[in-house]
Amino acid sequence: MDKGSKIPLYLQLMDKLIMKIEQQDYEEHEKLPSEREFCEIYGLSRITVRQALQELTLEGYIYKLHGKGTFVAPKTINQHLVKLYSFTEEMKKMGKVPTTRVLEFNEIVADERLATNMNLKPFDEVFQVIRLRLANDEPLMYEASFLPKKVFPGLTEQDFVERPMYEIFFQDYQVSVTKAVEKFSAISVRDAEAKHLKMAVHQPGMLIKRNAYHNDILIEYTISVVRGDKFDYTVELS
Amino acid sequence: MDKGSKIPLYLQLMDKLIMKIEQQDYEEHEKLPSEREFCEIYGLSRITVRQALQELTLEGYIYKLHGKGTFVAPKTINQHLVKLYSFTEEMKKMGKVPTTRVLEFNEIVADERLATNMNLKPFDEVFQVIRLRLANDEPLMYEASFLPKKVFPGLTEQDFVERPMYEIFFQDYQVSVTKAVEKFSAISVRDAEAKHLKMAVHQPGMLIKRNAYHNDILIEYTISVVRGDKFDYTVELS
Repeated sequence: MDKGSKIPLYLQLMDKLIMKIEQQDYEEHEKLPSEREFCEIYGLSRITVRQALQELTLEGYIYKLHGKGTFVAPKTINQHLVKLYSFTEEMKKMGKVPTTRVLEFNEIVADERLATNMNLKPFDEVFQVIRLRLANDEPLMYEASFLPKKVFPGLTEQDFVERPMYEIFFQDYQVSVTKAVEKFSAISVRDAEAKHLKMAVHQPGMLIKRNAYHNDILIEYTISVVRGDKFDYTVELS
Repeated sequence: MDKGSKIPLYLQLMDKLIMKIEQQDYEEHEKLPSEREFCEIYGLSRITVRQALQELTLEGYIYKLHGKGTFVAPKTINQHLVKLYSFTEEMKKMGKVPTTRVLEFNEIVADERLATNMNLKPFDEVFQVIRLRLANDEPLMYEASFLPKKVFPGLTEQDFVERPMYEIFFQDYQVSVTKAVEKFSAISVRDAEAKHLKMAVHQPGMLIKRNAYHNDILIEYTISVVRGDKFDYTVELS
């Protein structure tokens, strides 16, 4: 550390640690030295070390496990919001193996609110599919999809076990998604989803509500809960 | 409640409460009955009431204050990510009065990481402006902006007290933003920002990193922390 520099010490420490993480001197999920050890190694005050570690946590380079210490976070997945994307295709592009676990498959009737969200009439029939999406066996997204029965009359649980959703739409119903509107919010993840996603409860997650259309007909309404420490989303504006 | 209906009881309760919130039978920040009171009012089990309240919390209709109860959440601001937008303009469109508090104004030198993020050389000079953005006196965003001195040589703190940033850029430097790239992630808000934003620590927030360009020159790098319970972001994909 250069104590005479104009650059604050905690920033110098951050730079050093980021470099070590990026060059994989510290590997994914490796335990980092404790605050006290960092103080000794670099001759810094506790407050400086703490600030650097807080910033690194915020920026997603490291994570803390209560009572266990601080660890190197694995790489985040960045999704560019340019055109329609599918989880399966995006993971393949990254060289990861996408898998899907069907947690629930139900035939339900739309209550007033779901009907409004889906441009249906109350009591219209809808398939509800709850799926856990994994990449290299790591759970990343918890998705509840609602699909109108009048568009996809013969859906079965087995369809979703075997094939990606958009493949079923296209192969069995000649229906493709031509437009989707997605709404992003930051939330605290709830018990049920946290358990499936192997997150601590109340960790931050991204809630995404997707309305997907074939021409102007709504064919899918999906609520996804995405691990906040795994994903970020990029958009270009002009 | 219709216990013979195909619609689960917790969904029926949610619908009823959402209607009351939307019709302002329950007003913003009004305290709701307790779980026990809801059980008595509607003749429902504790588990049903709890599930309805959990879903309503997730969906942003209500919020809990530890030890104080459950309250009606105020409306969320939805930002459409279609074209370049400014906080000031968006709030005006919604009929809200936008204000800005300048928390810090510093002239700093870029460390390696900031330089990389901003396409600068290390030790290039940069203005750092930290601002709190409010609408109708309610704090909504905490923003740290980094602006290259070579693009905006004469910036002063007073500029930011008096005028929106993009107005300064345009009026004083004839520089307009022609493109911006924004990256969204869900985070837990840290102590310092939580205090300014009047949030509980570890509540969910949206972290937005904006790189703004004039033609291909980077003129602004801004890190914003946005209240998760106030904002969501919509994007259309095709």
